Amino acid sequence: MTAGRCYGVGVGPGDPDLMTVKAARVVSECPVVAYFRAAKRQSNARRVVQHHLTSDHTEMELIYPVTTEAVAPSLYETLLVDFYDQSAKRVAEVLDEGIDIAVLCEGDPFFFGSYMYLHHRLADRYATEVVPGVSSALAGAAVLGMPLTARNEVFTVLSGVLPADELTAGIAGADSVVVMKVGRNLEKVRGAVTRAGQLDRAYYIERATMPGEHVVPLADADPTTAPYFSMVVIPSVAAPRR
Amino acid sequence: MTAGRCYGVGVGPGDPDLMTVKAARVVSECPVVAYFRAAKRQSNARRVVQHHLTSDHTEMELIYPVTTEAVAPSLYETLLVDFYDQSAKRVAEVLDEGIDIAVLCEGDPFFFGSYMYLHHRLADRYATEVVPGVSSALAGAAVLGMPLTARNEVFTVLSGVLPADELTAGIAGADSVVVMKVGRNLEKVRGAVTRAGQLDRAYYIERATMPGEHVVPLADADPTTAPYFSMVVIPSVAAPRR
Repeated sequence: MTAGRCYGVGVGPGDPDLMTVKAARVVSECPVVAYFRAAKRQSNARRVVQHHLTSDHTEMELIYPVTTEAVAPSLYETLLVDFYDQSAKRVAEVLDEGIDIAVLCEGDPFFFGSYMYLHHRLADRYATEVVPGVSSALAGAAVLGMPLTARNEVFTVLSGVLPADELTAGIAGADSVVVMKVGRNLEKVRGAVTRAGQLDRAYYIERATMPGEHVVPLADADPTTAPYFSMVVIPSVAAPRR
Repeated sequence: MTAGRCYGVGVGPGDPDLMTVKAARVVSECPVVAYFRAAKRQSNARRVVQHHLTSDHTEMELIYPVTTEAVAPSLYETLLVDFYDQSAKRVAEVLDEGIDIAVLCEGDPFFFGSYMYLHHRLADRYATEVVPGVSSALAGAAVLGMPLTARNEVFTVLSGVLPADELTAGIAGADSVVVMKVGRNLEKVRGAVTRAGQLDRAYYIERATMPGEHVVPLADADPTTAPYFSMVVIPSVAAPRR
């Protein structure tokens, strides 16, 4: 029997209409649909594809055993490695039965997506395919209504988890910037943007293209409510502006 | 009469299935579809959407008056400003008749897309909306089958048009990199990647997700044939690799 095919499917930034035609088709056609989620939170990727799911689909939930805050970093790493090993084993059992499986990822699977940890464990033994998706970074610029990068500008994406000095250096070294994973790092990120001299052209965006979308100048963002799905966008300087 | 709505539509990296559901719908529903193209080259964006075009659509070709090579940079700038002014005027005439128009862009409209020059001229007077698309940078990683960015890595996108020393600095300052607009800048880009010490993990990709797709280690890329639709990808180091 031929083994099934493992798809890493980027479902885009949140609006179901911003899935690609291919992502919608792959999700519709794969008998099994898998997704990672935190124990106490519903999967946003599943919400995005829900209109493509029918009673014929089998859903496989891959539930993180811990959150970053709960345990020491070294133990967290060990627990996560075990979790990804076990998750890959569950996916492999489906593939071994000749069944195709779609692993959902918010945005793009190879752009900060957890799918890559399954890919690493499966791609040498199974047919795999990545369906790229619209990154939330680009969706943020669309929501803002301002060009992200023009001409020969340098564009950089940073993680809000980085230390403040690395954030400042990264922002200072680029023309346009998106900082992802802002959430509870908001004050640190705002400090870094300020030190890089860019506060007056930076925006804070929550839940881009999703229900509850919220856009304000970074200077006005409320650090007490910033959710995981938040980012900072410093748009193009070279593009013509109104 | 209410004026029409101007959509900047990202059609994605080249594979028509990598258009978003929304892009496909907007193109289908807009009576007028506009796109930029060079005088001697067909529009790749139009090729991507061609299955959504019917005899009911009116097409508006916005043909660049010159190429970068043909004239001095200062004259080129002047000619382009005039061209974008005239193009915006043509689009505005359609909108003034109450007709919606979709302006096609390869990849994403606000990520190096020419649509931004129309947006700048129209958004203060007309309803505008940007439909974000899958960037060729992400499509390149999918085609390569290697994660682009993981954990807290710094990701940078550079234009191959930049001077060699700026390319080298940009590559050295990031963990993962995509260089776009490679084409005839290939030897310069390869030199910069080499000086940044990254040649052994860099890939050259031509026409990602399009007919004629071609992937080789950057060391083996042929500078005499590199087309406009080519890029260099230096994937993630932090992601698990096979």
